[in-house]
Amino acid sequence: MPQGQPSVVPDDGLTTRQRRNRPLVVVHTGVGKGKSTAAFGLALRAWNQGWPIGVFQFVKSAKWKVGEENALRVLGASGEGGTVDWHKMGEGWSWVQRDIQGDNATNEEKAREGWEQVKRDLAAETYRLYVLDEFAYPMHWGWVDTDEVVDVLRNRPGTQHVVITGRNAPEKLVDFADLVTDMSKVKHPMDAGQKGQKGIEW
Amino acid sequence: MPQGQPSVVPDDGLTTRQRRNRPLVVVHTGVGKGKSTAAFGLALRAWNQGWPIGVFQFVKSAKWKVGEENALRVLGASGEGGTVDWHKMGEGWSWVQRDIQGDNATNEEKAREGWEQVKRDLAAETYRLYVLDEFAYPMHWGWVDTDEVVDVLRNRPGTQHVVITGRNAPEKLVDFADLVTDMSKVKHPMDAGQKGQKGIEW
Repeated sequence: MPQGQPSVVPDDGLTTRQRRNRPLVVVHTGVGKGKSTAAFGLALRAWNQGWPIGVFQFVKSAKWKVGEENALRVLGASGEGGTVDWHKMGEGWSWVQRDIQGDNATNEEKAREGWEQVKRDLAAETYRLYVLDEFAYPMHWGWVDTDEVVDVLRNRPGTQHVVITGRNAPEKLVDFADLVTDMSKVKHPMDAGQKGQKGIEW
Repeated sequence: MPQGQPSVVPDDGLTTRQRRNRPLVVVHTGVGKGKSTAAFGLALRAWNQGWPIGVFQFVKSAKWKVGEENALRVLGASGEGGTVDWHKMGEGWSWVQRDIQGDNATNEEKAREGWEQVKRDLAAETYRLYVLDEFAYPMHWGWVDTDEVVDVLRNRPGTQHVVITGRNAPEKLVDFADLVTDMSKVKHPMDAGQKGQKGIEW
């Protein structure tokens, strides 16, 4: 993509510099591949800027995305770029003690607990980039209130970029977000009878 | 995405294992964001598998994607996963001596020279994953013959996965590819007068 010029200059009272540094809410949605993969690709850029990165994986199984997780852990520990904290719902969020919310918690409860932590981190400006992986689902299912998410994101302090992935991103979130990409499937090997394979699917 | 079952079982004489390990040609096209970013995200998985990775950037300027490049270089040198070779057209391909093809070479010549090296590497099975970034453009512009690309990819030896990114991926390539995702723009900050910013665009 060329660096290019914006197609319109908004009448928002901001300087170009202020506008340039405005923190973004990015949404990757659609039924195609690449939603999470592109989010983790974005994390590489954030890492290169030396930013602290927080990943919150809102998925039941912790099996997937081990490649991205291992890579970002190595990068975060390399001392050359930013730091990386990787939180997994599938293994029980790291900040939740087992005796408080154990294995009996429903996925709905777990998803909500994840969102509560994201809120705390946003308020504390813990990270500069948040990857809320598959977070579109709990919103879509009504487990987490989309109005509240938009409200929290709108009023977040400082310069905190937030990337949200998942199919069926709610309309209200899409309306609010700054950058929205729809990944649509043109062709997938499973259509031709091929199963997922290591190095490609995970 | 769930691991799932394929929707059909093809009558191709292959076992499930053979089919699972069939090397893929992946295309990320469309006018939206995330085509390259998702390709570099895929490279994280390949790196995690310990695969040798070759990146060929078919773009004039070497300015973009420094974040991904630095991250993959650190990963490649970490000794924990696969190796990464990063070749840039914008700085003159590393394997081309200045006195053979200097600054006077046209972008068309440079793109073609890049493809010649990809062919040599595919024949030698140098890498397990190839990221041919923005390679759709030289095909679209007719600098590199799409029929030849498809032919070379069809007959490549061993288990070599190839990811090609860029707008306007030629129909013949899309027809041949195993996995094709179209990234479409729903909303972009430049539409609202915002310029690209560090950590997000590069």
